[in-house]
Amino acid sequence: MYGLIGKMKAVSGQRDALITILIEGIADMPGCLSYIVAYDSTDADAIWITEVWDNKNSHHESLSLANVQEAISRAKPLIAGFGERFETEPIGGHGLVASG
Amino acid sequence: MYGLIGKMKAVSGQRDALITILIEGIADMPGCLSYIVAYDSTDADAIWITEVWDNKNSHHESLSLANVQEAISRAKPLIAGFGERFETEPIGGHGLVASG
Repeated sequence: MYGLIGKMKAVSGQRDALITILIEGIADMPGCLSYIVAYDSTDADAIWITEVWDNKNSHHESLSLANVQEAISRAKPLIAGFGERFETEPIGGHGLVASG
Repeated sequence: MYGLIGKMKAVSGQRDALITILIEGIADMPGCLSYIVAYDSTDADAIWITEVWDNKNSHHESLSLANVQEAISRAKPLIAGFGERFETEPIGGHGLVASG
């Protein structure tokens, strides 16, 4: 499996709008086993996205999906920047669910 | 929802043993919606654990469950330390599944 843990900063006041776009955009992505969008508890503009994919290629190909492309173009103006980013290799646990 | 993203360092050479204990220990935890254990891709001793709970209290109470207590006592000798830790408030996404 292939995993990403990443922090995104929204334009001030746009965090909820950005999260809505992100959650709508991720429906039915082949190979996506988990994709969770969260507030950072200490920064009112920050978002954490944690992702698990069956492999790195599925993540790469997801970026070309029509709904993802559309979400990216709508999200871009609401993104102020990016923070920490960690690549992982998930081994197991609870909440790994096939999608798309 | 309540979320945690945390890095753990295993005693050298004990990462797989530690992950096995962690994954076994998390079965049937009430209120747990996601609990994924992953290798760090750049540090051979590091583990990332990403968790989502229905609320903070469920996470707190999980630490008293018999299987979790047993896992903690078996895991302790294999843990060298802890790294980054981020508290989150998950909003939605894919892979949020009731357990326990």
